[in-house]
Amino acid sequence: MATYTPDERSKGVRLAKRTEYDADLIHGIINATPILHVSFNAPSKEDDGAAPQFPTILPMLGAIGTYGSEQDPHIYLHGSSVARLSRLTGNSELPLCICATILDGYVLALAPFHNSCNYRSAICFGHAHLATDPAEIDFALHLITNNSIPARWENSRQPPTNAELTSTGVLKVRIETASAKTRAGGPSDERADLRDPEVVGKTWVGVVPAYMVLGEPVAGEENRVKQVPEYLSDWVADVNSLNEQKAIDAVDG
Amino acid sequence: MATYTPDERSKGVRLAKRTEYDADLIHGIINATPILHVSFNAPSKEDDGAAPQFPTILPMLGAIGTYGSEQDPHIYLHGSSVARLSRLTGNSELPLCICATILDGYVLALAPFHNSCNYRSAICFGHAHLATDPAEIDFALHLITNNSIPARWENSRQPPTNAELTSTGVLKVRIETASAKTRAGGPSDERADLRDPEVVGKTWVGVVPAYMVLGEPVAGEENRVKQVPEYLSDWVADVNSLNEQKAIDAVDG
Repeated sequence: MATYTPDERSKGVRLAKRTEYDADLIHGIINATPILHVSFNAPSKEDDGAAPQFPTILPMLGAIGTYGSEQDPHIYLHGSSVARLSRLTGNSELPLCICATILDGYVLALAPFHNSCNYRSAICFGHAHLATDPAEIDFALHLITNNSIPARWENSRQPPTNAELTSTGVLKVRIETASAKTRAGGPSDERADLRDPEVVGKTWVGVVPAYMVLGEPVAGEENRVKQVPEYLSDWVADVNSLNEQKAIDAVDG
Repeated sequence: MATYTPDERSKGVRLAKRTEYDADLIHGIINATPILHVSFNAPSKEDDGAAPQFPTILPMLGAIGTYGSEQDPHIYLHGSSVARLSRLTGNSELPLCICATILDGYVLALAPFHNSCNYRSAICFGHAHLATDPAEIDFALHLITNNSIPARWENSRQPPTNAELTSTGVLKVRIETASAKTRAGGPSDERADLRDPEVVGKTWVGVVPAYMVLGEPVAGEENRVKQVPEYLSDWVADVNSLNEQKAIDAVDG
């Protein structure tokens, strides 16, 4: 699977030229985004099938991976909210929309109307169900943990207890369609403004890169490991240099 | 209005103790979040009132403010997607869910099951309509611009042209209910793990602060202002110190 097939859900309506369906691009954005935004319609209490007017959004942790001998990658979502979602959906599947957005910079134009952002964003649509196989839950927790913090799984207490495996809510989402939108580069201004010496003479234009950094790890009260382990200091250094580089690269488009 | 009244949409289902309804807290999170996630149900094309299964999420720019002599603050949303939303909704109001999430840090526990994040998150529900009054659109653009980049409005080409005002899509959202969830502090581990010398002896626990920084402004090709103006270098410095401080403050809970 090199690209997703667009449908009514994922097709680029505006800015079609910025819409892409490449699976690697989409998966990369999902896995690089610390917090995913997950939207769904809570089934109405009367269970009359009526349209719920308001969808809900939950911020959740998640990552994309392929379990065992399966062919397709799935998004695994984890968090205390999974319990709520699974109560809502019971044993049936829940239609989800998952969005990941990374801000790469502020684009400042001569006129505020032309200000913009550099960003990478992905949206996935698919049905979700609660994972119940303990081996797959173990896989998903491992995946989500190490996707955020490489090698953390191996360097903390594992395997999970049976109580942890059975009480951890993991949603498995089949990606039915997906797309990505990205924007890079400097401002694009009106010719009239560019030709106005007063406007051009007083208005700084360009890009201010924006990116997430990790600070110095702060040991907890119960910590007994004197030095911050190398896999953690490497993670901090890698995230900081990679995120900065992505934001700088986006300046030139 | 000091607090929002919770209803079925905004009530804390899980982690009720982390759910708050304070208006200042909620507005502060919305205005401090660079990109808002906006979810809605696209009316089905057949217009048969059937429930659309899949909501959509769009990343958008927006800010909260109170226009003219109005009593209540509204969320104003801006972006090329507004055109799509307003085409979908026509002249009627569109039910929206708006979510803002700020990551403050990774919380590393002895067992991956107890890993967590420090974060501030707000969710607002309400009906949206397209702003049509040019004076209010001007107000909204000013608000959104300066909420991201203080004093940028005054320091770029304004007022907007009539063409800009009439072609800019601005959605005005009445906040009908809203809530915030926040998490701060260090890890919270199982007693059994804390008493296991092998686990405690090899597993670093604590918090790794995370926050967005702004890099050095990079002048665009068309820029003719030699020095980065003070209001921009102040903005970069202020964002960087404030965001770092918030992430550090969250470590201690």
